[in-house]
Amino acid sequence: MFEIAETGHVIDKETYDAEEPALRADLLDAQYALRENGRFPVIILIAGVEGAGKGETVNLLNEWLDPRHVHVAAFGPRTDEEAQRPPLWRYWMELPPRGSVGILFGSWYTEPIVNRATRRTRQTELDASIGEILRLEQMLVDEGVLLLKFWFHLSKKDQKERLEALDRDKKRTWRVTRTDWKQFAKYDEYVKASEHTLRFTSTTAAPWILVDAKDRRYRELTVGRTIRDALQRRLAAKQAEEPPTPQGPVVRAFDGRNALESIDLNRTVSDDEYKPVLDDLQERLGRLCSSKRFARVGAALALEGMDAAGKGGAIRRLTRALDVRQYEVIPVAAPTDEERARPYLWRFWRHLPRKGRFTIYDRTWYGRVLVERVEGFCSESDWRRAYDEINAFEEQLVESGVVVVKFWLQISKDEQLRRFQERETTRFKRFKITPEDWRNREKWDAYQAAAADMIERTSTKHAPWTLVPANDKKVARLDVLRTTVKALERALKGQER
Amino acid sequence: MFEIAETGHVIDKETYDAEEPALRADLLDAQYALRENGRFPVIILIAGVEGAGKGETVNLLNEWLDPRHVHVAAFGPRTDEEAQRPPLWRYWMELPPRGSVGILFGSWYTEPIVNRATRRTRQTELDASIGEILRLEQMLVDEGVLLLKFWFHLSKKDQKERLEALDRDKKRTWRVTRTDWKQFAKYDEYVKASEHTLRFTSTTAAPWILVDAKDRRYRELTVGRTIRDALQRRLAAKQAEEPPTPQGPVVRAFDGRNALESIDLNRTVSDDEYKPVLDDLQERLGRLCSSKRFARVGAALALEGMDAAGKGGAIRRLTRALDVRQYEVIPVAAPTDEERARPYLWRFWRHLPRKGRFTIYDRTWYGRVLVERVEGFCSESDWRRAYDEINAFEEQLVESGVVVVKFWLQISKDEQLRRFQERETTRFKRFKITPEDWRNREKWDAYQAAAADMIERTSTKHAPWTLVPANDKKVARLDVLRTTVKALERALKGQER
Repeated sequence: MFEIAETGHVIDKETYDAEEPALRADLLDAQYALRENGRFPVIILIAGVEGAGKGETVNLLNEWLDPRHVHVAAFGPRTDEEAQRPPLWRYWMELPPRGSVGILFGSWYTEPIVNRATRRTRQTELDASIGEILRLEQMLVDEGVLLLKFWFHLSKKDQKERLEALDRDKKRTWRVTRTDWKQFAKYDEYVKASEHTLRFTSTTAAPWILVDAKDRRYRELTVGRTIRDALQRRLAAKQAEEPPTPQGPVVRAFDGRNALESIDLNRTVSDDEYKPVLDDLQERLGRLCSSKRFARVGAALALEGMDAAGKGGAIRRLTRALDVRQYEVIPVAAPTDEERARPYLWRFWRHLPRKGRFTIYDRTWYGRVLVERVEGFCSESDWRRAYDEINAFEEQLVESGVVVVKFWLQISKDEQLRRFQERETTRFKRFKITPEDWRNREKWDAYQAAAADMIERTSTKHAPWTLVPANDKKVARLDVLRTTVKALERALKGQER
Repeated sequence: MFEIAETGHVIDKETYDAEEPALRADLLDAQYALRENGRFPVIILIAGVEGAGKGETVNLLNEWLDPRHVHVAAFGPRTDEEAQRPPLWRYWMELPPRGSVGILFGSWYTEPIVNRATRRTRQTELDASIGEILRLEQMLVDEGVLLLKFWFHLSKKDQKERLEALDRDKKRTWRVTRTDWKQFAKYDEYVKASEHTLRFTSTTAAPWILVDAKDRRYRELTVGRTIRDALQRRLAAKQAEEPPTPQGPVVRAFDGRNALESIDLNRTVSDDEYKPVLDDLQERLGRLCSSKRFARVGAALALEGMDAAGKGGAIRRLTRALDVRQYEVIPVAAPTDEERARPYLWRFWRHLPRKGRFTIYDRTWYGRVLVERVEGFCSESDWRRAYDEINAFEEQLVESGVVVVKFWLQISKDEQLRRFQERETTRFKRFKITPEDWRNREKWDAYQAAAADMIERTSTKHAPWTLVPANDKKVARLDVLRTTVKALERALKGQER
C-alpha cells in the first residue's frame, strides 16, 4: 500500500507560495469556527517513519494555527505512573476538550508497531492491539471527535538520504540518533508491521491519510489542505442529528423475567452469625491488601444499586479493614466543565488507581446506562454503545492487572420506602435523602429495567456482576466483603505462579 | 510542649454516647452549610505518632461526615512523576476545591520530621523546610482555606503499649510493621524533631491542635468538636470583608523612573547580522537540550510583555530548535471551574513540567500582578501578597533543578499601535487582535506601572527578569534565545560537578 506514497510528488516554490497564504487563513478561520461551535474536538495524529518531517509538520501547524488553542502531546518512555495503568491510559489523559485541536505526536500506534517490527511481540499480540485501537477510535468518533490520522512515508532509499542529510546538517545532526539508524536497518520489518496495522485501522470513520513525505512543499500542502477540508466539511454539516436509533429493543427473555428477579431478598442473617463472619472477612481482607503481591495488582470495586440500598454502609465495612493510605473512595459527582468537554468515560479514567491501591467507586461509569438512560441525559445511541465501551474499558483494567469487582445492591420497593422515611426523621441521615430520590423512586420500574439490561450486557468473564440482596443490610455487607475477599484471593494466587 | 498532651484525659462511655449523636449531626449540618456557602475549602491535616489512632480517626470522619464530599489524600513514597517536581508539588495537587473538605493523612510535615529524626538531614535543612511550610500555609490561609492541623500524641510508654496491643490483635497485627518498631526505637529523636517543627509552625492563622491520643473517646470528641467549632465560627463570620489594604504604595524611585525606562528601544539588528546569529543560537540550544545532562534539569521559560510585543514570534524561534517531544508551550487560558475553586497558582502547578522538558509559558502566573491587578479582578491585598508567593514558588522550582528564565518584552506605545493596525489588515493575523486589546491599550500607563512594580519585586537571584527591547522583532528574538542559551549553559555546567 505504501507504493502510492512513493510516486514522487513535487510542488514548486511558485505554486506553494501562491497557495500558502490562503490555506493558512482558511485554517485559522476554521479553527476559530471550531472554537465558536465548541461541539467537537479535533485530534490530529502524526505518525510515520523517522526523518519524514513529522516534527517539522507539528511546528508548522503551530505556526499556521493559533498555537494558544492547539495542544501538542508527545509520548516517550512510560513513567511509572503510566506503567501502572492500562496501556491506553496515557493517551486517554491527553484527549483535547471540545472546541480545540490536539496533536498527538507518537500515539497508540507507536508501541505496537515498534514491538512487532523488533520482534518483541508476536503477530497475534499486534492483532490484539489493533483490536483495542479500533474500539478506542470507534468510541472517539462516536463521541464526536474529528480524528485525522496522517502517516508520513519515505521509501527506503529516500529515508536513507534524509537521515544522511540530517547527519550532515550541523544544526540538526543531534536529531539523528543511533536509534534512528537502528530502526532504519529494520526498514522492511517496520514497513511490514506498519502496513498490516494501517490496513486494519483504516476505517470509514477514521481512515489513514498517507503522505508522500519526500517533498517538503507537497507534504505541507497535503497536510494543511486535508485538515482544512475536513474541518470545513464537518463544520458545515448540520447540527449533528440524532443518529438512527438501533433496530429493535434490547433482547429480553420472553417470559419477561430478568436477572434481578433471581435475587432472594428474603435472605437474612442474625446478629450472632454476623459478627464473627464480619470479623473474619475483614481480617482476611486486611491481610490480603497488606501482602506484597497486592502491590502488583490493585483492586477496583464498583458499587451500584437503587437509592438507599446501603452502598455507603457496605463501603465502610470494607474500608475499616484497610489502611487509610491504600484505599480511596471515589463518589460520583456532577461532571466539571473539563469533564463535560471530553468523552464520558474520561472522568473515570482520570481517577484510575495505581497498582497496589484499593479503589472503591460509589456509583460508577454505569451511570451512562442507568440514570443517563432513564432520565434521557444522553441519546439512545449513546447509551446503547456504552455497553461495549464499558466492557472494553473494564477488560483493559483487568488486563493491566487490576481486580475488578462489581456489585448491584437490590432492595424491594417497600424497603426503599421504609428507608427513605427513616432518613427523613433521623437527624444525621437527612443529607442522604433529597427530592431527587423521591423523583427517581417514581421511575422505579424504568430503573429496574435499565439495571437488568446492564447486568445482562456487561456481566463478562473478566468482570462479572455480583447481585446482592440488600433488604437485610447485614447480608449485603457480608456478601460484598466475601465476594471481594474471594476475588482477591484468586487474583493473588494467580500472582504466585 | 507534648506534656500537655499526656495529662491522661479519659471520657467514659456514657458521656461519649450522650454527646456523639448531636456532634455528628452538627458536623453534617456544618458540612452542608460549607457546600452551600462554597467560598472556602477545609483542609484537615492528621499527623502524629504511629499507633495513635490517626487512621481510625480518618475512618471516623468519613463516617461522621458525608463521605461523598470528603477527599482523603494519603502520601507514600514518591513516584517518579512526583520526584521530578518540587517537593511540595504532590501536596499542591491534592488541595480540595472550595466548598469541600480535604483530609491530608501524612502531609508536608512527614518527610522533614522523619528525615531529621533519622539524621538524614541537618537541623538547618529542617529549618529550611519549616520556612517553606510556613509560606505555603500562609498562602493557603490567605486564599481562604480553613486549615486545621491535628497532632496525635502518645507518651513513650503509651506508644509501646499501643503497638504491643496492635501486635496481639490478630485482626490488626499486619498493621504494625517493622518500620513502626524501628521508629519507636527513635522515639526521643522523633519527639525532638516534632517539637521543634510544631513550635515554629504553630501560627495564629493555623495553630497546631495537640490531641492526647491515649483514650479513644477523648481523642474522637476532641477532633470532632474542634472541627465543628472552627467550621461554625468561620461560617458565621460575615462575608469575608476586604482585608485592610497594606499601608502605603509600592516604593518607587523618587525621580519617577523605573526599570522599564532603562530599556533601549532603539536597538536594531540588520538582516545580515541576524541570520547567522540566529542559526548559531538555535544550534546551541538544540545541542544543550539534547544533552544527557539536560534530563536532570529541565527549563521553564516565562514570557510576559505588552500586547503585540512579539511573544509568539520569539517562542517559535525557540521551538524550531527543539525536538517536538521535549517542549511544551502553555498558553494562559481562562481558568476552568476546577481551577477557579483553588488557589490561583494551582492552574500553573498542575502543568509543571517534569525534568528534561522545556516548558514555555506564553503569559504566566504574573497575570495576578498585571491584568488581575490593573483590571481589579482580585483585591489589592491579593495581588500585593502575590509577589512573595511567586518568589517562593519560583525558588522551589529552581531548587528542584529547573532553570527558570523570565522575559519582559517591551515595545513603545507607537509601535504597538502600528502592529495593532497591521494585525487588523492582515488576514491571517486578525485572530491576534480583539476589542480587549484596544481596551487594554487605553490603560497603557497602568499596565506599565504594574510591570515595573512586578520587575522590581520579583527579579530575584534565582529567577531574574530579562528586559527585552522588542520594537525590533529580530533584536527581541535574539535576546530571548541568547539569554536562554546562556542560562542553560550555566546550569548544565553546574551539573558537571
